[in-house]
Amino acid sequence: MRAVTIVDGELHWREHPDPEPGTGELLVAVRAAGLNGADLLQQAGRYPAPPGSPADIPGLEMAGEVAAVGAGVTRFAPGDRVMAIVGGGGQAELAVVHERVALPVPPDLTWEEAGGFPEVFTTAHDALFSQCGLTIGERLLVNGAAGGVGTAGVQLGLCAGASVVGTARRPEQRQAVEALGARVTAVEPDQAAAHGPYDVVLELVGGPNLASDLASLASGGRIAVIGVGAGATAEVDLRALMGSRGRIHGSTLRARPLEGKAAAARAVEAHVLPLLSTGDVKVPVAATYPMAEAGQAYRHFAGGGKVGKIVLVAGG
Amino acid sequence: MRAVTIVDGELHWREHPDPEPGTGELLVAVRAAGLNGADLLQQAGRYPAPPGSPADIPGLEMAGEVAAVGAGVTRFAPGDRVMAIVGGGGQAELAVVHERVALPVPPDLTWEEAGGFPEVFTTAHDALFSQCGLTIGERLLVNGAAGGVGTAGVQLGLCAGASVVGTARRPEQRQAVEALGARVTAVEPDQAAAHGPYDVVLELVGGPNLASDLASLASGGRIAVIGVGAGATAEVDLRALMGSRGRIHGSTLRARPLEGKAAAARAVEAHVLPLLSTGDVKVPVAATYPMAEAGQAYRHFAGGGKVGKIVLVAGG
Repeated sequence: MRAVTIVDGELHWREHPDPEPGTGELLVAVRAAGLNGADLLQQAGRYPAPPGSPADIPGLEMAGEVAAVGAGVTRFAPGDRVMAIVGGGGQAELAVVHERVALPVPPDLTWEEAGGFPEVFTTAHDALFSQCGLTIGERLLVNGAAGGVGTAGVQLGLCAGASVVGTARRPEQRQAVEALGARVTAVEPDQAAAHGPYDVVLELVGGPNLASDLASLASGGRIAVIGVGAGATAEVDLRALMGSRGRIHGSTLRARPLEGKAAAARAVEAHVLPLLSTGDVKVPVAATYPMAEAGQAYRHFAGGGKVGKIVLVAGG
Repeated sequence: MRAVTIVDGELHWREHPDPEPGTGELLVAVRAAGLNGADLLQQAGRYPAPPGSPADIPGLEMAGEVAAVGAGVTRFAPGDRVMAIVGGGGQAELAVVHERVALPVPPDLTWEEAGGFPEVFTTAHDALFSQCGLTIGERLLVNGAAGGVGTAGVQLGLCAGASVVGTARRPEQRQAVEALGARVTAVEPDQAAAHGPYDVVLELVGGPNLASDLASLASGGRIAVIGVGAGATAEVDLRALMGSRGRIHGSTLRARPLEGKAAAARAVEAHVLPLLSTGDVKVPVAATYPMAEAGQAYRHFAGGGKVGKIVLVAGG
């Protein structure tokens, strides 16, 4: 098979041995694979793949057809359309994933949408519901609302009966965020505090925002830190945190063991796939690139300003 | 009645009008009232009493006999021994508290112990169980283990089947902390990391500890910040928090509304009072002072180095 391959920080499209599905695993003929911030960190040598994942093939998510199954597989059969988070190696013609981590692709979803769905929707669902317990009538701030996790978080928040404020730097991004639903307000980052206080903050930008997040946190509020692209260091006023009886969560999906990823996937299958099928939730795709042109896709991602996902598609 | 009274930052023992119990409230003839860090902050003008509490009478907790009851009271009758967290005004001959916030005093408990029980055990119980979900087999770090909340947290952690490491500066404090149970290790503050990683950290010292707390946090670990005497500002490495999938909670009891205080009290009544009765949990009392000598008691508290509670007793 061929795969996007990191060699000395550069991306190549290279031959690799075909992976083989082990017990409980699916071999997937990848049709589309979304880009994530972690791919750029891995390219820069700052986010090594976890043990058991190929060290030099990036890709945290993919969608495709089951090509073969390992021993003991019961949930899927060859030909089934699946999508999944993987520890790495998603940006390749073939990828292996445990069947407990794989999700069925709803009939109406395109490959591009399916390839860009798992990572951001699982991340946003896990942060908003499993960690922060977002519920009806609450006020949600999504800091960095135009990106992949951001557009997922805004939509899931609206589905849950929350009112949502999303921040984005560019006017066209804010327009796109407001188009995600009727109860969402998009503002410039420094205007977020004026629309609070917030019961839940989904922080996708990073450390520099924490002081303002805390200052506009409602009593009993929760902050989920998912992205730190703007900086990982935050100065936290613990007295303010105590006064609001607040909570700061940090989380990544990638570092979780199999059972953690499987549990998150099962929650998304139960609670988010139905909303995809009804059209209440969509996967905004900003751009697609052939896998062989991954370098161009990564540069687009790094440049910022997009709305939704950048997805690599098969047929390099 | 007479009460400890803050006048321009100084403590006096002064006459005040007797308080009157409203609907659902108890009038309590106070026999003992524990000191807490918040009293010193209030004395210094940095922690005003919440609305509805006397502005100039400190005291977050007290124990005594019910002297009279307001309309609609069903849980207690005159003569009953009660102890409770109050918004303020506990350090007085008479205090008023809602019956839903009051706890019955177990027969074997002395007034000194009862006066020093509610605030620290409710704080520790709320932090360890309601917030952090401490459970059997986990490893608990109590930073500042020799104080009131610290000795409560160590004992509750042991009762819950956790192994406990407590930090304290002075050798005699560490000796007293280790005497609290068989599965507790007391160490100097800078030795805590060597005994981790920790599933739960009860942080009673403050901001300067947060970096080390985070660095020694186990995967899925929780930090509860309850005290910030050493400083309220913390520099937090959000990438480390994400990598450990960690959580930082801030909390105070004082700022909670009636229903919050009542819920915390009911949890303590159900889960901690039985352990007091069996002797599995004790209230270490470091020193007692007559209420009229509150100034001396506050100076003792501010000096540090104590083990357990300083308690004011009636009969000034």
